[in-house]
Amino acid sequence: MAHSLSSVRMGEMTWKEYEQNVTDVPIFIPVGSTEQHGPGLPMNVDSVIPTEFSELAADRVNGIVAPTVNYGAKSQPGSGGGSEFVGTTSVHGSTLSQQIRDITADFERDGAQKIVIFNGHYENEYPIREAIDKRIENGTESEFIIASWWDLLSPSLRDDIFQDIPGGFPGWAKEHAGVVETSLMLYFRPDLVDEDRVPDDSATRDPPYIIKPAPADTITDSGVFCKASYGTAEIGEKIVDDVLETLAQGIHDEWSLDN
Amino acid sequence: MAHSLSSVRMGEMTWKEYEQNVTDVPIFIPVGSTEQHGPGLPMNVDSVIPTEFSELAADRVNGIVAPTVNYGAKSQPGSGGGSEFVGTTSVHGSTLSQQIRDITADFERDGAQKIVIFNGHYENEYPIREAIDKRIENGTESEFIIASWWDLLSPSLRDDIFQDIPGGFPGWAKEHAGVVETSLMLYFRPDLVDEDRVPDDSATRDPPYIIKPAPADTITDSGVFCKASYGTAEIGEKIVDDVLETLAQGIHDEWSLDN
Amino acid sequence: MAHSLSSVRMGEMTWKEYEQNVTDVPIFIPVGSTEQHGPGLPMNVDSVIPTEFSELAADRVNGIVAPTVNYGAKSQPGSGGGSEFVGTTSVHGSTLSQQIRDITADFERDGAQKIVIFNGHYENEYPIREAIDKRIENGTESEFIIASWWDLLSPSLRDDIFQDIPGGFPGWAKEHAGVVETSLMLYFRPDLVDEDRVPDDSATRDPPYIIKPAPADTITDSGVFCKASYGTAEIGEKIVDDVLETLAQGIHDEWSLDN
Amino acid sequence: MAHSLSSVRMGEMTWKEYEQNVTDVPIFIPVGSTEQHGPGLPMNVDSVIPTEFSELAADRVNGIVAPTVNYGAKSQPGSGGGSEFVGTTSVHGSTLSQQIRDITADFERDGAQKIVIFNGHYENEYPIREAIDKRIENGTESEFIIASWWDLLSPSLRDDIFQDIPGGFPGWAKEHAGVVETSLMLYFRPDLVDEDRVPDDSATRDPPYIIKPAPADTITDSGVFCKASYGTAEIGEKIVDDVLETLAQGIHDEWSLDN
Amino acid sequence: MAHSLSSVRMGEMTWKEYEQNVTDVPIFIPVGSTEQHGPGLPMNVDSVIPTEFSELAADRVNGIVAPTVNYGAKSQPGSGGGSEFVGTTSVHGSTLSQQIRDITADFERDGAQKIVIFNGHYENEYPIREAIDKRIENGTESEFIIASWWDLLSPSLRDDIFQDIPGGFPGWAKEHAGVVETSLMLYFRPDLVDEDRVPDDSATRDPPYIIKPAPADTITDSGVFCKASYGTAEIGEKIVDDVLETLAQGIHDEWSLDN
Amino acid sequence: MAHSLSSVRMGEMTWKEYEQNVTDVPIFIPVGSTEQHGPGLPMNVDSVIPTEFSELAADRVNGIVAPTVNYGAKSQPGSGGGSEFVGTTSVHGSTLSQQIRDITADFERDGAQKIVIFNGHYENEYPIREAIDKRIENGTESEFIIASWWDLLSPSLRDDIFQDIPGGFPGWAKEHAGVVETSLMLYFRPDLVDEDRVPDDSATRDPPYIIKPAPADTITDSGVFCKASYGTAEIGEKIVDDVLETLAQGIHDEWSLDN
Repeated sequence: MAHSLSSVRMGEMTWKEYEQNVTDVPIFIPVGSTEQHGPGLPMNVDSVIPTEFSELAADRVNGIVAPTVNYGAKSQPGSGGGSEFVGTTSVHGSTLSQQIRDITADFERDGAQKIVIFNGHYENEYPIREAIDKRIENGTESEFIIASWWDLLSPSLRDDIFQDIPGGFPGWAKEHAGVVETSLMLYFRPDLVDEDRVPDDSATRDPPYIIKPAPADTITDSGVFCKASYGTAEIGEKIVDDVLETLAQGIHDEWSLDN
Repeated sequence: MAHSLSSVRMGEMTWKEYEQNVTDVPIFIPVGSTEQHGPGLPMNVDSVIPTEFSELAADRVNGIVAPTVNYGAKSQPGSGGGSEFVGTTSVHGSTLSQQIRDITADFERDGAQKIVIFNGHYENEYPIREAIDKRIENGTESEFIIASWWDLLSPSLRDDIFQDIPGGFPGWAKEHAGVVETSLMLYFRPDLVDEDRVPDDSATRDPPYIIKPAPADTITDSGVFCKASYGTAEIGEKIVDDVLETLAQGIHDEWSLDN
Repeated sequence: MAHSLSSVRMGEMTWKEYEQNVTDVPIFIPVGSTEQHGPGLPMNVDSVIPTEFSELAADRVNGIVAPTVNYGAKSQPGSGGGSEFVGTTSVHGSTLSQQIRDITADFERDGAQKIVIFNGHYENEYPIREAIDKRIENGTESEFIIASWWDLLSPSLRDDIFQDIPGGFPGWAKEHAGVVETSLMLYFRPDLVDEDRVPDDSATRDPPYIIKPAPADTITDSGVFCKASYGTAEIGEKIVDDVLETLAQGIHDEWSLDN
Repeated sequence: MAHSLSSVRMGEMTWKEYEQNVTDVPIFIPVGSTEQHGPGLPMNVDSVIPTEFSELAADRVNGIVAPTVNYGAKSQPGSGGGSEFVGTTSVHGSTLSQQIRDITADFERDGAQKIVIFNGHYENEYPIREAIDKRIENGTESEFIIASWWDLLSPSLRDDIFQDIPGGFPGWAKEHAGVVETSLMLYFRPDLVDEDRVPDDSATRDPPYIIKPAPADTITDSGVFCKASYGTAEIGEKIVDDVLETLAQGIHDEWSLDN
Repeated sequence: MAHSLSSVRMGEMTWKEYEQNVTDVPIFIPVGSTEQHGPGLPMNVDSVIPTEFSELAADRVNGIVAPTVNYGAKSQPGSGGGSEFVGTTSVHGSTLSQQIRDITADFERDGAQKIVIFNGHYENEYPIREAIDKRIENGTESEFIIASWWDLLSPSLRDDIFQDIPGGFPGWAKEHAGVVETSLMLYFRPDLVDEDRVPDDSATRDPPYIIKPAPADTITDSGVFCKASYGTAEIGEKIVDDVLETLAQGIHDEWSLDN
Repeated sequence: MAHSLSSVRMGEMTWKEYEQNVTDVPIFIPVGSTEQHGPGLPMNVDSVIPTEFSELAADRVNGIVAPTVNYGAKSQPGSGGGSEFVGTTSVHGSTLSQQIRDITADFERDGAQKIVIFNGHYENEYPIREAIDKRIENGTESEFIIASWWDLLSPSLRDDIFQDIPGGFPGWAKEHAGVVETSLMLYFRPDLVDEDRVPDDSATRDPPYIIKPAPADTITDSGVFCKASYGTAEIGEKIVDDVLETLAQGIHDEWSLDN
């Protein structure tokens, strides 16, 4: 069977198909990570979510989704990661930054004018920005939108979701592998969620600074730091609709797209 | 539905599942690329093939397959890539090497003793070796097998495949997007192959040195440099069986695995 | 006049004085930046504040304050900086990270066991963490506390301060050169504040993603993004007391200091 | 009190003040170090001296003094530093070079045409030159003067100073923490000098090559390698006048300044 | 005696002689290595051969030969090198690549339009290509030929040479320190060959993948992996004539030289 | 003819010969450059001199001379080099430093305990020191002597040589391609010297700071900055004897060699 022209996945296109579109449409680069997400979620959460969002958004704005960057920047214990957890497999921020520079340089070489770097892992934010700053210093004429999905969630929806959850919204760092990510995974990839093992957990203490190496009482055995069990596919669907609307509308407006 | 314990994909495991196995079993890291593969094959060929092989081999030797590295080292015009072709989206060798170093350092931290780096893109070979050399200089006690799938193909099978193809085996550089990759994609992912557009092509001349920038008559318009149309799913299946046997047996023997 | 033994400044000690204390006491490294802070505050705000806090805290816990790092990581338009503003003079995150690595390696060589990296510039956070992660991977036995002063401010005091300010607390990114920094400078260095020029300002729009290069309507002409004119020395004093208490107590408790 | 417009310190200016001047006037970047300077001088000698000189020179030529770089390149035992001495806290030359590149790139971005890098630490010379060489290769149109204060001292004054000191001028490497630096500190910052502890010292032997690690008999216990006790504030004042005259006149002539 | 104008060696020219020619003629950069070559050949084989070829070729096409790069990229056990063999003294690929970039940037600065990088060590290939790719991304207008001498050997001559040698041509990796290199050294520098000690050897097994660290049975005690004793000066002479013809003709044709 | 066992050149040894000696004897690494040396001297002066000295010294102390590093760090206009002169072909200091690190790491791996880095180019000094500092931080147990030949020349002989030359000793920076280098080349390689073209020259002015880019009146057309014509082979011989005595005696004493 021949390759479907309607796909948004760059990796599944031939270079001839890609060549016809690259200069005109937004290119999405999903940037994820491989990181512990507690006993009920898989380690690819941070890659699955931005990839799914990118594909949905690209479908709306006629974009192309580049292959996912599967290894993100060193996560930190305070946001549920770090070398304290087996399985968290990262690159240094400087490595990720160099990777993003190299990739975007090639997109620019091919004439891409509008590049969306869509992030699913908190610690990726700085290396991504640094990469793009260096491209700009280098004289690129491309334009970039850098977005992390949690920043796109409407405050009003966030308040709705957490109003009935004990303790309310704990902040994004503690929400690692929490209600929102559990909900998104139940919506996007329920086959990868073991709901019975999604826990409610919290560290004994939560100092307002980072201690390295991290003392045992500042992290948890489960790798979860909040009431993740409150996540549902229904919440996930609401978040997807909300984030997607903001993202697609933003891209449309910033770059005056016709569609 | 709960996550299946039988999966070999690290990204689909929870960290708790992974933790129970990482110190004992081989870890496979598929390293691919995003590169033009002619008008009939998608740009993810070099990622799909090592990922598929890794999963099949991991299934045989009870291994775990880490997420795929989707962007490979700068490809060269002489092996069908290079900046001459739109869509070829790469990182510098130094970037890939650093990425492999960071990732393997984290696997070592978690106790992985046996790491297979399985490569699907010719130009990745040197950065992978350099990464592992630096880990060894750094004192790692892990052991590594670095394999490119084409090196595992039996010479006898290769001769069989090419005996009826005009011109015979053109060498692996020219075989980029050729008979073997077409056959493997027809076997692994026929939905991504547009057979009607898989061409037979060759450059006007093929000098025994590299010229940079590449003169137009040393490359092709299609991005194919051989008689790719001779590829079939049947050939693909034979290659898969052959490569897989060598790989699984090799891993088994080198590391004295029980199963 | 001879050098006072009571000074906490490493740079003002002789090496003999320093040598007697380095292995026992906390070493503070203030990390700042040189960045626009609106028309009423000087460009050294992010260096002055962590230096002053470090000296006050070191006085309480018998610590030593190393010379200030005066150039911070590339600031971002969304947090009031970036190359859009003349005077913002930064290093890349990778450069800052390397600098922190080199410096802490020398402190470790001299036997420092307890190192506090005290940060005054948002964008420094990731390079500092990366530096310390790499030291830990390298096998250091020193322990580190990484703190940004704003994270140490009690939520209750923050609420008190902003309850009477129109719009309330706008988030730390928008608070760049805002109420809190103005108050702290009025307390620490009133001679450097031109109160008549401290403005209330805000950008026309504030998208929940980063656009590079930054559109003009997402930044301000003044470089201020909030109601900075509400800052006072009295607020500054309250903040200093509050932050200092948390910092000194935290250091004392984490490292079981006697005093 | 409002900020004084007459200050030469960039860090104490608002970005608006700075913006009005940056394209026209010389920008001074003092580059220092944190290094042992014997039992009578503080560890910030190499930062204090170039900062003071820069401010005096900027006052004469209407320049602006950027914040001081407080950590210099790895010092060497032969010039009184190195890892043999506790307190010597350095960055690698490659780190310093990168820092200077990043900083000067930002000055250039803001339109600075004339940049004086004023150095107070011998080992900084090469990294500074390398940084500027790379800026020039990168196509900068700014002009640079790189000066170390000791190179500006008139040979005749140097001869005068050392004619009555036993052994005469020992060379700049041995003069580390010696007569000249003691004199300059007694002039600039007498509060930081403990004159009673400024020693006369010398190593048992002084080979004409570098041995690493440094044998004990090639360095001293005090960290001083000459007759530092001969330093006086009067000598300091003469040196300041002399160096300043050469520096200000040089800047004036090279760049055809009006004032 | 005055320097002969007829020399092709850049290092033996004055800069005035060089200046008159650099913009017009091909510049050859021989890139070698320092590596074990068995008990009968010296460790400079990979430097001697490309230097000799470069000088002969430069003589034919009126070129200039730059000084030889004597330390090559980390060799691999599978091609007869690696850290398993004492004496193999290498740089990392990233280091070699940076060196080639720096050197070629200076040649370009001086106006060199045609640069031949002539390689004598297998593992140098990737770092050389990466260096030139980065120069091209940087906007160079020079043109490059990158050649490894073994790629220039005619297949027909190769078949002739190996037709009477037991086992035939074993592939270039195994030919390290083999028939061809022995022959070339006997032709170029017989004084450096100890023919009595040139062995025939082979590893117990030769897996089609790389194992790191290399098991003892995959390498040899001699450092030779083939029937090197069949090398002769006569074979060497034939190879030299053949390679030189291809190289000189190729340079002539690619760059439309007059002579 | 078999390879002579008496050679000191590592590159001309087999690895078996080298293996027998590497752990016991001093290893010399000559580090040179490719740089303009005026109209009468070749561009390899800085490589020839340290290579010749290393071989003579190795002969005296039973050492081994590694292949010469032929490309040195960016030279500076003030010491007769820089990008102002065609032919000066350099690497960045960071590149040279990395190269020296890689090479010495391999010597250490093979058990070398005593390494002499013998330098012939002023600007190489800092990168060499940085390389060795990093090896020491990395925990090497080897010992290093870093020597530049001009530092080994006895002050008394220097005074003798220059007493009859108008203007006397101008300092080493100005002596680039001067009396001493001309004399050494007339002694070591008279075939490479065109005595009739060795000039006496000097720049119009010589400011005590570095200006970049270098103004035309601070450099010379010839590339020579002193009275080079006074060089003779006789002076060269005296220098060789003097430097060699100091070097060999120093090595002997520092490392308590038996011979």
